[in-house]
Amino acid sequence: PEREVILEERRSRVDNDPGSQLGEMRNAALFVHHPYGTPIIGWAHEMAGLKTADAVAFYDTWYAPNNAVLIVTGDVEVEEVKRLAETYYGPIEARDVPERSRVEEPPHQADARVERVDPLVRQDSVSVSFHAPSFRTAEVEGQADALQLLDQALSGGATSRLYRKLVVEEGIAVSAGSRYGGDDYDTSTFRFYISPREGVSLEDAEAALKREIDTLIAEGITQEELEQAKRSLRGSAVYARDSISAPGRIIGMALMTGQTLEQLEAWPERIESVTLDQVNAAVEAVFKGAHSVTAVLKQEPTS
Amino acid sequence: PEREVILEERRSRVDNDPGSQLGEMRNAALFVHHPYGTPIIGWAHEMAGLKTADAVAFYDTWYAPNNAVLIVTGDVEVEEVKRLAETYYGPIEARDVPERSRVEEPPHQADARVERVDPLVRQDSVSVSFHAPSFRTAEVEGQADALQLLDQALSGGATSRLYRKLVVEEGIAVSAGSRYGGDDYDTSTFRFYISPREGVSLEDAEAALKREIDTLIAEGITQEELEQAKRSLRGSAVYARDSISAPGRIIGMALMTGQTLEQLEAWPERIESVTLDQVNAAVEAVFKGAHSVTAVLKQEPTS
Repeated sequence: PEREVILEERRSRVDNDPGSQLGEMRNAALFVHHPYGTPIIGWAHEMAGLKTADAVAFYDTWYAPNNAVLIVTGDVEVEEVKRLAETYYGPIEARDVPERSRVEEPPHQADARVERVDPLVRQDSVSVSFHAPSFRTAEVEGQADALQLLDQALSGGATSRLYRKLVVEEGIAVSAGSRYGGDDYDTSTFRFYISPREGVSLEDAEAALKREIDTLIAEGITQEELEQAKRSLRGSAVYARDSISAPGRIIGMALMTGQTLEQLEAWPERIESVTLDQVNAAVEAVFKGAHSVTAVLKQEPTS
Repeated sequence: PEREVILEERRSRVDNDPGSQLGEMRNAALFVHHPYGTPIIGWAHEMAGLKTADAVAFYDTWYAPNNAVLIVTGDVEVEEVKRLAETYYGPIEARDVPERSRVEEPPHQADARVERVDPLVRQDSVSVSFHAPSFRTAEVEGQADALQLLDQALSGGATSRLYRKLVVEEGIAVSAGSRYGGDDYDTSTFRFYISPREGVSLEDAEAALKREIDTLIAEGITQEELEQAKRSLRGSAVYARDSISAPGRIIGMALMTGQTLEQLEAWPERIESVTLDQVNAAVEAVFKGAHSVTAVLKQEPTS
């Protein structure tokens, strides 16, 4: 019965939402070979064919204590947690877990564009995505930290560059920003997006977004923008500690994507130490001359 | 050493040719999940990691007489061939071959476009590809035969529709046509293409090609075009028998993609019996409202 539940989840979250469907096609275009191009929930036709035995086999293969992280957050005592963990989880024996076969995405040789025009679209939007190194895969010292700061400078709040220029100054967008996911185990992505305000064509909004990307590549960001981004990230790190779930999620994500607790603890100092040269070198390395995937979501007038 | 030979083959055939590189990205966009999106020769970074042991393991797994077709063409006697085959291949024992795990492509939810702009491009071109059933996967009786006739009507020679309209009458293209590969084991594709003549922009050529596709969807082909296509296919079947290699290739392809010798023998009658309604129903089923993949190859002026 769980299979029907998950298929229904897919239907309601993806199949009834042109934006989610487009997101799947965008990811498939970004990762033509790496499994990041496959939706986490699965393709419907394959989900439909899965049997209980498949789930049990997956569980038996991968759910081993030596392949897991236990995170407990809240008003607890470390010693008490350790004792309880040893009592309840300790008896579960470690066992051989197969080596993960990591598939590498080949270099792309063309710009790609996926476009969904649908009467169900409520808000037009366009995004431009680039491959970008993650914390684990960045080969240049500090590059992922630099990209995180760049993301913050471009899109972290009302003073950030894309919001300020496209929403406030030019007044052509209802939203505009960027998104960088440094916590992927393999290659990550850096995305720019815009939604035009009423009366502005999607084509004009796309052109404005691409102008901003070109300007960024040509000029980088400024020292002032970098300092502001550092302040914002510092602030969000403090806020994160206020939450019960956020630290656990951050730690779990880091440990499962190839980082260590030490690297995580050093994150505030790493962020503080990023220089403007590092950010603008990352801009050049990731975006200049790189192929991108543009995703267009457009309302089709019901006629 | 063979690995280096094949890597060099890939370099010279694909990596030095923007059109081939675009073709790889087009196939990857057409098949985001099915392995038809992976180049047959392989992605360079994975080829580089293959060892002799991988080749030997592949050979040991798949190269079994019960998984092979022997084709002999030429001035031979059937009985003599049988005797020799039994003498030399007969002693090789059949063995268990793993069941092939067939991956199915999910329905696409967006139009896709891949674009390569490169100074090495010598001739601009644009193609529009749709998923289409193959001979083996067609669920509607005669649908693949109908698509083969459609392909012939659109692009088989100087009197075919796309050549006549876009190259001869409108004079905007140096070439235009279609390509249908019904001999895929799984889902196949139907592609339209155009290359603009000098002085015609790629955008205008693309618009003209898309107009032709829209006209085709709206009006289908005519009885006269169908008769002409049948005549052409009849002719090419006769020519194919003139060649030593073609019949062997055709028979081998058919047997390896799920057809039988009987189906192949019946092909001429099947083609003759296709009606105009069948062709135009196939047009509607395959193209109307379907998502497509547009691939654009464009010369970048060296400045």
